[in-house]
Amino acid sequence: MRIDVLTLFPEMCEGVFGTSILGKAREKGIVSLNAVNFRDFSGNKHNSVDDTPYGGGGGMVLKPDPIFAAVEHVLAVPGNQKKPRIILMCPQGQTYTQQMAEELAQEEHLIFICGHYEGYDERIREHLVTDELSIGDYVLTGGELPALTVIDSIVRLQPGALGNETSAVTDSFSTGLLEYPHYTRPAEFRGWKVPDILLSGHHANIEVWRREQALQRTLERRPDLLETAELTVKDKTALERLKRSSSNTL
Amino acid sequence: MRIDVLTLFPEMCEGVFGTSILGKAREKGIVSLNAVNFRDFSGNKHNSVDDTPYGGGGGMVLKPDPIFAAVEHVLAVPGNQKKPRIILMCPQGQTYTQQMAEELAQEEHLIFICGHYEGYDERIREHLVTDELSIGDYVLTGGELPALTVIDSIVRLQPGALGNETSAVTDSFSTGLLEYPHYTRPAEFRGWKVPDILLSGHHANIEVWRREQALQRTLERRPDLLETAELTVKDKTALERLKRSSSNTL
Repeated sequence: MRIDVLTLFPEMCEGVFGTSILGKAREKGIVSLNAVNFRDFSGNKHNSVDDTPYGGGGGMVLKPDPIFAAVEHVLAVPGNQKKPRIILMCPQGQTYTQQMAEELAQEEHLIFICGHYEGYDERIREHLVTDELSIGDYVLTGGELPALTVIDSIVRLQPGALGNETSAVTDSFSTGLLEYPHYTRPAEFRGWKVPDILLSGHHANIEVWRREQALQRTLERRPDLLETAELTVKDKTALERLKRSSSNTL
Repeated sequence: MRIDVLTLFPEMCEGVFGTSILGKAREKGIVSLNAVNFRDFSGNKHNSVDDTPYGGGGGMVLKPDPIFAAVEHVLAVPGNQKKPRIILMCPQGQTYTQQMAEELAQEEHLIFICGHYEGYDERIREHLVTDELSIGDYVLTGGELPALTVIDSIVRLQPGALGNETSAVTDSFSTGLLEYPHYTRPAEFRGWKVPDILLSGHHANIEVWRREQALQRTLERRPDLLETAELTVKDKTALERLKRSSSNTL
């Protein structure tokens, strides 16, 4: 898998690409991660990549030329067969989800375009990109952190990227429920004890307790997730009971 | 404003803290940004910060001791008056929004706790943190990118952080609508022209066009935002017309 990030701040990406899981995946050859400074493709003496908006108003707008040229440079790299997804990070994009992470993780080549506290010329959106993504409903200074976030979620799904192969599938959202509470040593910390059941050694009971805790946490915090989660008959019975007991408490 | 990030990968944060808007805000003294490695507070010879989960199962769990100790170290810094918000980045947290960014931007001191592809001991959640935040419904390898994302959204709202004071309020989500399309030079790029109206010089007409484009884009891509957006009578009339014309197209 090959991922190129078009940015004015390649150093911001390189720091993250070299660290932790991403750094290891890169070292193992699982993914090739490249930050491309599209200022190098400005095509003008002043290296300018933005200009004032037509029609007036504050702020600056990223010009189409340098971004088209940078994408075409990346596409010209030998060995590129399949047409890559070209992803624009922007607040107007589709809200990113785990389902999209799983879909994008199947691709061979992804190109991310990151603007920085500026708008994009609309022709980039209309004639160059294949996808527009937003990581959530908040305003940021640039597309770099969103692109890195999406990349992190995709690379961790590549076979061999995580030490423990099971980790990728048992996390929150992957199972459709929020995770149950975790406890580790010490068994008592400042007077706060680990629940007895976890020290009981009775694995079947522990599994039941954990599943109920996951259901309860999801019910309390993110009931919207229950609509799409895969629930067994047992889960549904447990949920009915949890709903009754929470309405009794009120 | 002071922001501390508790992490096992301080270098990942430092790279971002030193770049662009965050770097400039830090230089201007608008915000103090610190990455604290909680491994320094392990309190054991092996510098271990995690352990296997009680009750069995895969993965590792972050121990309570190092994280409590690191937070207490940060709180002991002289000049700390008001109790800070202590924010745990986790998929089980409340989904972060621009409204929360505006709320957190008022605080004097924020502490972020970032786990890394592991669970947190539940006692951290129950007895230490004031807030749990998630930046969206996808799984990441750690809390660093989410914390940096939240910090970016908060710092840009600090007076003086952005060059152009108006930028912070006219962006997507701040106005409740997605942004209208932007265009800059050249007026024709590879045969694709800038809309005539933007070259007309008629500012009142341009304003009307832009507002309608913002309404249309929001209607097409994120109709859910229209429920909470502040709309004038004129906006509502325009929306009715846009809805009629889009249903005619079908």
